[in-house]
Amino acid sequence: MKLATYKDGSRDGQLLVVSRDLSQAHYATGIAQRMQQVLDDWNFLAPQLEDLYATLNQGKARHAFPFDVTQCMAPLPRAFQYASALGGANHLDLLYPELTGLEAPLLYQGYGHLQGASDKALFADDGATAISDTDPGIDFEAGLAVITGDVPAGAPPEQALDGVRLLTLTNGWTLRQRLAEERARGLGFVQAKPAVAFSPVAVTPDELGESWTGGRAHLTLQTTWNGRTVGLCDAGDAMELSFGQLIAGLGATRRVRVGSIVASGALSNRAVEADGRWDWPKGYGCIAEKRAMETRLDGQPATAYLKFGDRLRIEMKGRDGLSVFGAIEQQVAPRAA
Amino acid sequence: MKLATYKDGSRDGQLLVVSRDLSQAHYATGIAQRMQQVLDDWNFLAPQLEDLYATLNQGKARHAFPFDVTQCMAPLPRAFQYASALGGANHLDLLYPELTGLEAPLLYQGYGHLQGASDKALFADDGATAISDTDPGIDFEAGLAVITGDVPAGAPPEQALDGVRLLTLTNGWTLRQRLAEERARGLGFVQAKPAVAFSPVAVTPDELGESWTGGRAHLTLQTTWNGRTVGLCDAGDAMELSFGQLIAGLGATRRVRVGSIVASGALSNRAVEADGRWDWPKGYGCIAEKRAMETRLDGQPATAYLKFGDRLRIEMKGRDGLSVFGAIEQQVAPRAA
Repeated sequence: MKLATYKDGSRDGQLLVVSRDLSQAHYATGIAQRMQQVLDDWNFLAPQLEDLYATLNQGKARHAFPFDVTQCMAPLPRAFQYASALGGANHLDLLYPELTGLEAPLLYQGYGHLQGASDKALFADDGATAISDTDPGIDFEAGLAVITGDVPAGAPPEQALDGVRLLTLTNGWTLRQRLAEERARGLGFVQAKPAVAFSPVAVTPDELGESWTGGRAHLTLQTTWNGRTVGLCDAGDAMELSFGQLIAGLGATRRVRVGSIVASGALSNRAVEADGRWDWPKGYGCIAEKRAMETRLDGQPATAYLKFGDRLRIEMKGRDGLSVFGAIEQQVAPRAA
Repeated sequence: MKLATYKDGSRDGQLLVVSRDLSQAHYATGIAQRMQQVLDDWNFLAPQLEDLYATLNQGKARHAFPFDVTQCMAPLPRAFQYASALGGANHLDLLYPELTGLEAPLLYQGYGHLQGASDKALFADDGATAISDTDPGIDFEAGLAVITGDVPAGAPPEQALDGVRLLTLTNGWTLRQRLAEERARGLGFVQAKPAVAFSPVAVTPDELGESWTGGRAHLTLQTTWNGRTVGLCDAGDAMELSFGQLIAGLGATRRVRVGSIVASGALSNRAVEADGRWDWPKGYGCIAEKRAMETRLDGQPATAYLKFGDRLRIEMKGRDGLSVFGAIEQQVAPRAA
C-alpha cells in the first residue's frame, strides 16, 4: 500500500492512503491520524489501511479526492531516529576511497525533522551562518530509505530486513564545504546536513514486486537537475550493502526502534571502461560525485554546485512505468526572513 | 516545575508533575498525556502544569501519590533529535587535544530513544556483536542536557538559550573501543553510543534559581561508582560553551525544532597545579578521563572500564541540599536474551 501525510497545520500532519497510480487519496482518519501511530501499532492498523487501499484502488472509496503532492509533508514528518549510509559503492569509490573495503557499514546519524517532497530547500543566509549560493557547495544526494518497525539489538541482516515497514525516496541536502570541515573533526555531520527531503509517498515493499529483492530496490532512480537528466541509476546495483545489513549495523549495540529511518545515502553506478577510458554512463547521484569523475578524467572539476533557483527532481518508476513514490521536486532557496 | 514520565506500557509513557522535594507526584492527565505534547503546545499547557505543581507543593493536590523513581522512563522517552557536545573543556583537554581551540561547537548527533534513570544499562552480548565486559571499554559520561522548544535557523546564542524549556541529567553510555574505531572513520558515533540515560525528573530552568546563569548550571554534579565518589564537578565551570552556544551551533543551517535534546557530554573540571604536579581534585566525568589523567601522571592507565554488575549514580543537588533531578542509578548488565 501507499501512504502519505498531508499538511494540516499540525506538526505531524494527517495520514492519507494513496491509490497505486497516485491519482486518488483518502484520509485514514477512521483508522489512524498520524504515521507514527500506524508504525507503533502496525500489526493491528496496517491491515485496516490495506483494506482501505484496496477499496480506493477499485474506485469504491466513498470520500476519495484527487491526490495533490504539493500538500504533502514527509510521509513521517518527525522521526525518532534518522541514520544514513555514507553512500553507495560508487559514492565511496569516488569520494571516500580511504573508507572502502571496510566490513562495518559506514553509517552516520542525522536529523529526525524531515522535509516534504515539494518544500523549498531552505538554507540559512544571515549573520554568522551566512550561506551564499556559491560559497558552501550546496548539493543534493538522491537515494532511498526504509522506515522500520522494532528490531532487536544484535539482529542479523535477514532478521533486520524483516523489520522494514515502508520505503521512500530521499534527497539528502548537503553543504560540501561544511562537510569537509566536519569530516576533518571526525564527529559526523551536523551543520553540513540540513533536513532531508522525502518523496510524497511511502510504500510497503510488496509495491515493488520482484524488484524488491535481497534488501535492495532494483529499479531506476531518475534524477533531473533544471530539467536535464543527470542520473539514471540502478538503485539495487548501487548499494553494496543491503538495507538488512544497514539496519543490522545500526542495531549492533542497541535496539532499532519503531519509526527509525535508515537511508542509503547517494546512489549511483560504478564506472565502466570503454575505449581505454573510464565512464559513468548512468550518471551521478550528487554533484560531488560528478566533480570527482571530472577530476579523475581531466584533473579538475568543471561542474559547479547548486545555485539558488535551481530545481531538482528525483523519481523512481516501477516496471509498469508508474511512479512508485511520486517525485521529490524541490527548488533551492535562501532561508525565508 | 518538575516533570517526569511514568511507565504505563506505552512507548511514550504517562506525564507526571513531581513536587519540588521529589516526594509526591500527580498525573497530568487532565492537562496532557505525554511530554512531547506539552513541548509542542508549551505556552498553553505549561502554565496549567505550573498551577498543578504549585498545588502539589502546597500539599493540596487531591490525587497526589508518593513519587517512585523506579517507575520512571526518561522524561522524554522518544526524542526527535538528540545531539551532544563532545564533552566539557577538561574532557577535550584530556581526550581530544587535537580538537581544542576550535571556535565551532564540537557536536555529534545521537539517538532519540532514551533510557530511564533506573533502567539497567544493557549491552548486546551475542554473535557478531559480542560485548563482553572487559573487551569494549564500557564507560559512563555524566553530564547535563536541555530539552528545547522551536529555535529558528541561524539564531544567535542568546536567542537560542531562550529556547530552553527543561533541564535534565544524562549518562551517555559509551563503548570506548568502538568509539576509537568510529572516530577513525570520521562519521560520528553509532555503535559506540547505546541509548543515553536520563534523570527521573526534568525541571524548568527557574528551579535552579541563581545557579542557572550564562546558559550553564553552576551546581555540583556528583558521580559515584560502586558507592565511591569519583566526580564532584562544578557543572558550570566545566562547560566551555554555554547551552545557548551549543543550540546555536546545532541550528546554524537548520531549525532546531521542539523536543530537541542538546547535551553537554561528559563534564569534569580542569586540572590544577599543586606542588609541581597536576591534579584533578574534583574527579572525573568518565573513566576515559581518569585513564588519561593516569597516563599523563604515570605514563599508563590504571583504572579498568566498567564490569557487568557495576553501579553508577549521578545526581545534582541545589544550594538547599535537595536533589534537583533525582538520581540516575544504573547497573551495567549484558543484554537480556
